[in-house]
Amino acid sequence: MSPRREKWREIIFEAETPAGKAFDVILLGLILVSVAAVMVESIKEVRQAIGYPLWILEWIFTGIFTFEYVARLWASRRPWAYARSFYGVVDLLSILPSFIGLLLPGGHALMIVRILRVLRIFRVLKMVRHINGAELLMRALYASRAKITVFFTALATIALIFGTLLYLVEGEEGGFTSIPVGVYWAIVTITTLGYGDISPSTGFGQMLTAFLALTGYAIIAVPTGIVSAEISKLDGDESTDACPSCGVHGHLPDARFCRRCGAPME
Amino acid sequence: MSPRREKWREIIFEAETPAGKAFDVILLGLILVSVAAVMVESIKEVRQAIGYPLWILEWIFTGIFTFEYVARLWASRRPWAYARSFYGVVDLLSILPSFIGLLLPGGHALMIVRILRVLRIFRVLKMVRHINGAELLMRALYASRAKITVFFTALATIALIFGTLLYLVEGEEGGFTSIPVGVYWAIVTITTLGYGDISPSTGFGQMLTAFLALTGYAIIAVPTGIVSAEISKLDGDESTDACPSCGVHGHLPDARFCRRCGAPME
Amino acid sequence: MSPRREKWREIIFEAETPAGKAFDVILLGLILVSVAAVMVESIKEVRQAIGYPLWILEWIFTGIFTFEYVARLWASRRPWAYARSFYGVVDLLSILPSFIGLLLPGGHALMIVRILRVLRIFRVLKMVRHINGAELLMRALYASRAKITVFFTALATIALIFGTLLYLVEGEEGGFTSIPVGVYWAIVTITTLGYGDISPSTGFGQMLTAFLALTGYAIIAVPTGIVSAEISKLDGDESTDACPSCGVHGHLPDARFCRRCGAPME
Amino acid sequence: MSPRREKWREIIFEAETPAGKAFDVILLGLILVSVAAVMVESIKEVRQAIGYPLWILEWIFTGIFTFEYVARLWASRRPWAYARSFYGVVDLLSILPSFIGLLLPGGHALMIVRILRVLRIFRVLKMVRHINGAELLMRALYASRAKITVFFTALATIALIFGTLLYLVEGEEGGFTSIPVGVYWAIVTITTLGYGDISPSTGFGQMLTAFLALTGYAIIAVPTGIVSAEISKLDGDESTDACPSCGVHGHLPDARFCRRCGAPME
Repeated sequence: MSPRREKWREIIFEAETPAGKAFDVILLGLILVSVAAVMVESIKEVRQAIGYPLWILEWIFTGIFTFEYVARLWASRRPWAYARSFYGVVDLLSILPSFIGLLLPGGHALMIVRILRVLRIFRVLKMVRHINGAELLMRALYASRAKITVFFTALATIALIFGTLLYLVEGEEGGFTSIPVGVYWAIVTITTLGYGDISPSTGFGQMLTAFLALTGYAIIAVPTGIVSAEISKLDGDESTDACPSCGVHGHLPDARFCRRCGAPME
Repeated sequence: MSPRREKWREIIFEAETPAGKAFDVILLGLILVSVAAVMVESIKEVRQAIGYPLWILEWIFTGIFTFEYVARLWASRRPWAYARSFYGVVDLLSILPSFIGLLLPGGHALMIVRILRVLRIFRVLKMVRHINGAELLMRALYASRAKITVFFTALATIALIFGTLLYLVEGEEGGFTSIPVGVYWAIVTITTLGYGDISPSTGFGQMLTAFLALTGYAIIAVPTGIVSAEISKLDGDESTDACPSCGVHGHLPDARFCRRCGAPME
Repeated sequence: MSPRREKWREIIFEAETPAGKAFDVILLGLILVSVAAVMVESIKEVRQAIGYPLWILEWIFTGIFTFEYVARLWASRRPWAYARSFYGVVDLLSILPSFIGLLLPGGHALMIVRILRVLRIFRVLKMVRHINGAELLMRALYASRAKITVFFTALATIALIFGTLLYLVEGEEGGFTSIPVGVYWAIVTITTLGYGDISPSTGFGQMLTAFLALTGYAIIAVPTGIVSAEISKLDGDESTDACPSCGVHGHLPDARFCRRCGAPME
Repeated sequence: MSPRREKWREIIFEAETPAGKAFDVILLGLILVSVAAVMVESIKEVRQAIGYPLWILEWIFTGIFTFEYVARLWASRRPWAYARSFYGVVDLLSILPSFIGLLLPGGHALMIVRILRVLRIFRVLKMVRHINGAELLMRALYASRAKITVFFTALATIALIFGTLLYLVEGEEGGFTSIPVGVYWAIVTITTLGYGDISPSTGFGQMLTAFLALTGYAIIAVPTGIVSAEISKLDGDESTDACPSCGVHGHLPDARFCRRCGAPME
């Protein structure tokens, strides 16, 4: 690898050098603006008023992100590994819709073009690269994954049973047209979302609903408790050092002397 | 008990041996597929399109689960105890609807047949047998049962009083047709579910509603706090070392002597 | 006070003796049944079908609770103090509606009679006397009262400001007919209740709503955190004893030896 | 600065002296009453019935708050710094609307006058000065700001992706007229607010909704866990003893030596 390519690799893939940091910040700004452009373009009035400027802007972004993609491929040590990685696929998907839209100029392909145009919103995923500090949260969630799985299995079972019961009790005339619709209603209810698009009208259905709502209200404590306990633990781990003299853990972050043996903490 | 029956008993009822584990995994898959079949069958369009294949599939499942039920009865050390246990009843209920449906071919029994067909969804309860790791959660809930009872009694009292007040304030023309309906509304409100099928229209009713919503918003902290504290405690217990002398688990992190036998911990 | 009256006082006011406990349990059952009777009586169909039996039942309950009230007055050491206490007032209010209803037989007083009939539901407050174990929860809430006051003041300020903004942005045609209605909407939104009886229709109103919903979603963590921390603390206090030898606190509930000095805990 | 002005400065700006405290309490009462007056004035019926008395009351409040503003300017050591501070701007804004309303008597300015009249509600912000004890909560939120930022970025990304998906799946006829509307819906759903003004009607849309609702239900645990852990930590710090030698607070409960100066704690 030539030193020039190596230097560019550092700028593009790392964030330690000032140039690498500037590259990241500029790219983050471009991503946010391009996402905002796709968002406002979906509003009919905006599309009719400034559709052409947005179209030009879109091609500028496509140009920049294409250049970025090619640069990443060129600067990467193993281009193929990058192309198949999560970020490689996201980078490709963020430019592909514009180019595919070019190949489908016919009126009959309008629907596909519209979907492709919207899919550019997933450029927001390019942003994930730039978020720092999510580690503690991810670790807390990861450490609790077994308990969270059990919790969601239990939730799914409750939703299935209550959705089926309401389907039987309320029936089609009550809006519960099938068991999947009943399960949808049960999830909307147990999470205390409560759209009201489907709601019980019979007395027995309302009793079951009240019971399900109370269940949802009470068991939200379970995931909260799990994650709280995990964050508390991980948080505590990070802020402590062992005493160099007696080895006791669990000092406060600003401790200068060991609380057990009185030796200086350094 | 013959060795062959004993061997089958191990496969069917235990999950320690590879064969027993494979039996469990296959059964879990069959349960999930049969539940999915009942779910999609409840959708009118699906029933009209592929009703016959689903009917055949249903009888295949009924056959397999009947075979499983008979095998469990045969392999069990105490068949009668199994038949009356929670799992025995669930296993029987998962095949019974299909057979009862056979005995009621008349058009006038259509409603009952339909309900029976739907009740096969409760096969999902057969799944409970296969969920591991729910112990910590169950212990945390069990340890907090007294506090949870107090909490729900308080919640029911608040719901009863507010439901009655709104019934008086809003009256029948406001949708509050009786006190039970008012209590249903109060539970929907205090759990922050909020369907909107019944909502206050008078100023005083809206004031009471705002007060009830804030109460529900604030006291959700109570079950959460209870279960959080419990999980923290149990969790802490589990993550600590066993006594090298008597093997008891669950010492506090800074324990220097086993709390059960008094032996030094190191 | 005669020994007989003293004995009755113990039965009626205390729950330590078997007779006193039986008195409490019977009364609790009667309260629940009488509350259920008032509830079902409010349903029109039930009132039309079994109005007369319910009317008789009602007078039986009124008789029993009148007898209870007179007995409490007679058996109490200071009848006047009892009559003015919370429970004394509740006991009186639970019988008064029936008697006032008698004095207003005219058709024009129907409304008042109806309200009085419904107010008998507050007999449920007689139940509060019989709930045990609410102390830990009450203590946790009491210990956090300063923080909870600050929290609700902040919440009220946010609700007032957002309710006013939406009143300006959406106006009367959007359902926000006055600032109090806007505040009602803001409370329904920040508590994530979300009836949908009033919801924003303009783009700017929806932006403000999204912001308010996210605020409500995030700051529910505050009361939860406050009460959780409080319950954890109080809970920890209760389950521990000091070591009789070295005085260290914070042992596990089943500890038999001190974890610090190894002395038996007894 | 003359002693008289200095004395007034203490009364107006400080709350330590009895006179200063009385000044604060009276002002707090006036703010609350004036806010209540603006609130009820926005109700059409009230405005028509007692519009004139409210108008007089309004000018009394404007007079008092103008006097207060001038007094603060006069008594302040650096009037210009006060005028540009948060409280200075709030104090000015609380009187400005009434005076601007005077200058716009024409009928065509009615809308502006109406808005100005309503904006006087922001006098409630004058109250912030008088709330004590919010420090612990603010510190807990401040200490968690990095985690909370990560959390909200993640939430915004999820809302953007799901809002876009539903816009594609449900389309305009389903009420999802643009991506911003879809994002509004996604936020209303993930916070479990659930107005029901926009809700999915297709099966696939309902599946995505159920998934989003469960996500919102589960990840509310994250902010709760963060703030809980933080409050626990800060709370624990406060409730422990000071070092007898150097006076530092916030030792761990079992500390035997001060972590700052190493002196024995007893």
